[in-house]
Amino acid sequence: MASTSRALTRLADPQLGLRAAQRQLSAVPAVASIARLSTSSTRRSLLLASNLTSKTRPTLSLSRQARRAYADAAPAKKPRKFRYFRWAWRLTYLYVLGSIGYVIYDGYSSRHPDIQFQPDPSKKNLVVLGTGWGSVALLKKLDTENYNVIVVSPRNYFLFTPLLPSCTTGNIEHRSIMEPVRQILRSKKASAMYYEAECTHIDAERKVIKISDNSDIKGDVNMTEVPYDMLVVGVGAENATFGIPGVRENSCFLKEIKDAQAIRTKIMDCVETAGFKNQKPEEVSRLMHMVVVGGGPTGVEFAGELRDFFDEDIKKLVPQIADSFKVTLVEALPNVLPMFSKQLIDYTESTFKEEHIEIMTKTMVKNVTDKYIEAEITRPDGKKELTRIPYGLLVWATGNALRPLVKDLMSQIPAQKDSRRGLAVNEYLVVQGARDIWAVGDCAVAGYAPTAQVASQEGAFLARLFNNMAKTEALEAKVHELSSTLNVQPGNSAQIVQEIESTERQLRRIKDIKPFHYSHQGSLAYIGSEKAVADVAWLNGNIASGGKLTYLFWRSAYLSMCFSTRNRVLVALDWIKAKVYGRDVSRE
Amino acid sequence: MASTSRALTRLADPQLGLRAAQRQLSAVPAVASIARLSTSSTRRSLLLASNLTSKTRPTLSLSRQARRAYADAAPAKKPRKFRYFRWAWRLTYLYVLGSIGYVIYDGYSSRHPDIQFQPDPSKKNLVVLGTGWGSVALLKKLDTENYNVIVVSPRNYFLFTPLLPSCTTGNIEHRSIMEPVRQILRSKKASAMYYEAECTHIDAERKVIKISDNSDIKGDVNMTEVPYDMLVVGVGAENATFGIPGVRENSCFLKEIKDAQAIRTKIMDCVETAGFKNQKPEEVSRLMHMVVVGGGPTGVEFAGELRDFFDEDIKKLVPQIADSFKVTLVEALPNVLPMFSKQLIDYTESTFKEEHIEIMTKTMVKNVTDKYIEAEITRPDGKKELTRIPYGLLVWATGNALRPLVKDLMSQIPAQKDSRRGLAVNEYLVVQGARDIWAVGDCAVAGYAPTAQVASQEGAFLARLFNNMAKTEALEAKVHELSSTLNVQPGNSAQIVQEIESTERQLRRIKDIKPFHYSHQGSLAYIGSEKAVADVAWLNGNIASGGKLTYLFWRSAYLSMCFSTRNRVLVALDWIKAKVYGRDVSRE
Repeated sequence: MASTSRALTRLADPQLGLRAAQRQLSAVPAVASIARLSTSSTRRSLLLASNLTSKTRPTLSLSRQARRAYADAAPAKKPRKFRYFRWAWRLTYLYVLGSIGYVIYDGYSSRHPDIQFQPDPSKKNLVVLGTGWGSVALLKKLDTENYNVIVVSPRNYFLFTPLLPSCTTGNIEHRSIMEPVRQILRSKKASAMYYEAECTHIDAERKVIKISDNSDIKGDVNMTEVPYDMLVVGVGAENATFGIPGVRENSCFLKEIKDAQAIRTKIMDCVETAGFKNQKPEEVSRLMHMVVVGGGPTGVEFAGELRDFFDEDIKKLVPQIADSFKVTLVEALPNVLPMFSKQLIDYTESTFKEEHIEIMTKTMVKNVTDKYIEAEITRPDGKKELTRIPYGLLVWATGNALRPLVKDLMSQIPAQKDSRRGLAVNEYLVVQGARDIWAVGDCAVAGYAPTAQVASQEGAFLARLFNNMAKTEALEAKVHELSSTLNVQPGNSAQIVQEIESTERQLRRIKDIKPFHYSHQGSLAYIGSEKAVADVAWLNGNIASGGKLTYLFWRSAYLSMCFSTRNRVLVALDWIKAKVYGRDVSRE
Repeated sequence: MASTSRALTRLADPQLGLRAAQRQLSAVPAVASIARLSTSSTRRSLLLASNLTSKTRPTLSLSRQARRAYADAAPAKKPRKFRYFRWAWRLTYLYVLGSIGYVIYDGYSSRHPDIQFQPDPSKKNLVVLGTGWGSVALLKKLDTENYNVIVVSPRNYFLFTPLLPSCTTGNIEHRSIMEPVRQILRSKKASAMYYEAECTHIDAERKVIKISDNSDIKGDVNMTEVPYDMLVVGVGAENATFGIPGVRENSCFLKEIKDAQAIRTKIMDCVETAGFKNQKPEEVSRLMHMVVVGGGPTGVEFAGELRDFFDEDIKKLVPQIADSFKVTLVEALPNVLPMFSKQLIDYTESTFKEEHIEIMTKTMVKNVTDKYIEAEITRPDGKKELTRIPYGLLVWATGNALRPLVKDLMSQIPAQKDSRRGLAVNEYLVVQGARDIWAVGDCAVAGYAPTAQVASQEGAFLARLFNNMAKTEALEAKVHELSSTLNVQPGNSAQIVQEIESTERQLRRIKDIKPFHYSHQGSLAYIGSEKAVADVAWLNGNIASGGKLTYLFWRSAYLSMCFSTRNRVLVALDWIKAKVYGRDVSRE
């Protein structure tokens, strides 16, 4: 109340108010700038107050300055609660406006990139195979002006694979998690080439790769060679079927966009076929039985998403099949999510029980026909038992196998003959036994799990390595040049020697690159019903959590991990769309 | 100033102000309700004013009521311009809030529909074939409680075809223009059946149809019969190739979602293949030459969208092929858009010239190979000339052909033997020579063009017809019942006679259905570079317009024509997305 009455006294004499305001403005600039934000209504009220007291209307400039003094004192009249509320509202408002502005600016700048310059053709050819996590992390951090960068991949976009299970049900549209590699390369300072082609052979001897355009539309030239000075192999892995008959013919994988689209179509195809006229109950049960093989995060997330899709959308629109729908998760190991802590595994299993998702552990698939899975279950007493599981949709989400290209390269290098799971690399990710070939991601064996997190850190490491190598070469060339001038031009040799020394110091600092070390950030998995589990690295330990709050964390973590702001905005929009309108049940 | 001083006088005595405010509130409710909208800042200023004059703080309720009196007088102090601005802002704000509220409410109600009741099984079986414009317009208006409605279609969604050309470039995502038929049926009062199946045969004699599940996943029962009492054929038409060899093998059609997706993939495949290493310049020119056959709205809109896609997105990301890109529109008639007025045809042709879209009129395609189109051009002097057009992508957007089902039905009915373009129907859309079979849309020949507009009006007409027929039957049954009781129960016969008369009057009114008459609303087409042409019916004449403003009209017209609010919101979001981020150049 003290400040209020002071403010009122001030207002009673506008001249005094003006002086007081000026004093205060110069003394407390922060307060003044806040006061400047006050709305025009404050000015109106002041005009009124002045009218009442001095009976003469003050000039505009006077009222404007006096307002500051008032604005700075007046809020004390309002209860604190309201003031807080008003500020919260203003900040939200500013935040929303700022975000919209940023999104538009980001879109504008991605559509109007700076002019790129062509790197010097005498630079080394750096060929990057693949557009997955490893290769794209490399491209993102690489200074493209140091090399002639050539990217070769049959897929002209990067795919944010952790959200792929959400695509299978339409919770997220697939284009929201794709980022065109052309866009990624266009945003670099120096231009880089991209060929949409598959690398069919690496000739480590001649240092060339063979590339082939395997898409539907082929030009006259659809096979050629690309020479390299440095090669990064980041082609990933294939789906492993472990030689089980019928898997490739009858099941859907979950690795690429096409897989997610196929699953989405098949889910609705099963539902519609179950709803066909006079379909027998046991056939309806078979069609509505969706089986997921593989208890890793992909399999678990898919099972959860599928259950959500059914409960939240399909059931309402096709009620006649509601009782027949069933999801089963098949895993050969004793439990699902082996990379998570025990308590989270238990939590996942109990949540799945609530969601009526059956988990069949210690179950090995032996054979797959078009309507049945034959599997061997190991009972708790150790006895093995064969069972036949009828299914409508089978999703195979387990294991990686070598791509033919990687097999071919390994067969060329004697040092790789003992490696089974991929290209053995040293601590700098150099393919062992090869010259100028590096490998990242699922096709490389560096002693870590084949995850996106590892691939991404490997790619980023290689980018730093290559940037450093370029700098090293430039500095070495400089040292060489300085040394050669040292004895030719006499006089300033002391200065040249000093310069050589400083350059060599710089060189030593740059050359001192530590070997690649993977830092595990944690594991996340969505388990359905808006619940998630998270095992996150924290200081020297781990934080394990599961539930609805963890789901919010899961969402924000994935959102922040998206490749671009564009991806982030699209994914967020998709989530809102799915919340408001539900998922689309059109079969397409 | 008069009103201001009056307000001030009022404020000097809060009690007086209160009384005045109450008087005014009861006298001018409109003003009062506007005053209620004034912001809290006004209240603050009033509190201050009261303090200055009465030196006692008024109670909250008093200040709240007095505020109304003030709020109603105070704005006169502000310049008119600002007041207008403030009101415009407030209205916009309310409008936006209202729209968001409506969208959420609409989404909520579509996800939480009322419980449906099952129609009486003794009612007639009304079988509807197809989920296109005709069938869906029928379903939308039909009172499903009067019939056992059974919908049969291999496509479980309605497709808003006018925006399909926009899907080919990713300006709109395909799911934004699809509406699941399950959702449409779920929103009806009485439940209706849907079978995702193709009708393979109509047995007009036995009044049954044969249906077959032709999708990938088939159940044990995948072929069966459905009896009907009334049948509506709305299966549409196939793409006509006019027997030209190579069309079906080498070109893309533009009728279904799959077609739009295939075109989208092929555009980027052509671009990527043209960008392949060492591709020869003439091969790049061929691959970058996109040919559209058919100068109707679909062909013209696709050509425009394609040019936009290239100019706004592809060119920036793949600059090396910028000079080779070319779009050609091939039309057998002397000009494009034959349904539009002469001046709009000229405008379209000149706009296409600016956009570097070549129009080849009087050009008949004779043969298509995998890389060339052979066409016969009629020169202005009447001379005919064969030409060979190399192409990368060929889109075939011309003509309709009969579906096998329609051909089969026509062959069963002698009265249809002279009909060529589809099922000849009478003025009530009854298939001529058949009993209880109606036809709508592109498979029916009622003397109108095969457009969405005609099909939609036909469907709506049939819905009214069927609703009336159901009412008629109910009334006739009532008359019959009354007549039979007339001589059995003596006494109140006069009353019964009166009731019969009134029912018969009702019956006559309902039975008096006018035959189907098509009312043309106009034609619209997008022609690229944010320009459109429109020929809109207005009173007894036509309004022809073209340009950027017409493009806004085109957008708003298509937006309002979308099937549901959901579609409208998604299409609008897609437009904003494409504006901010451009179209996606990922090949998928």
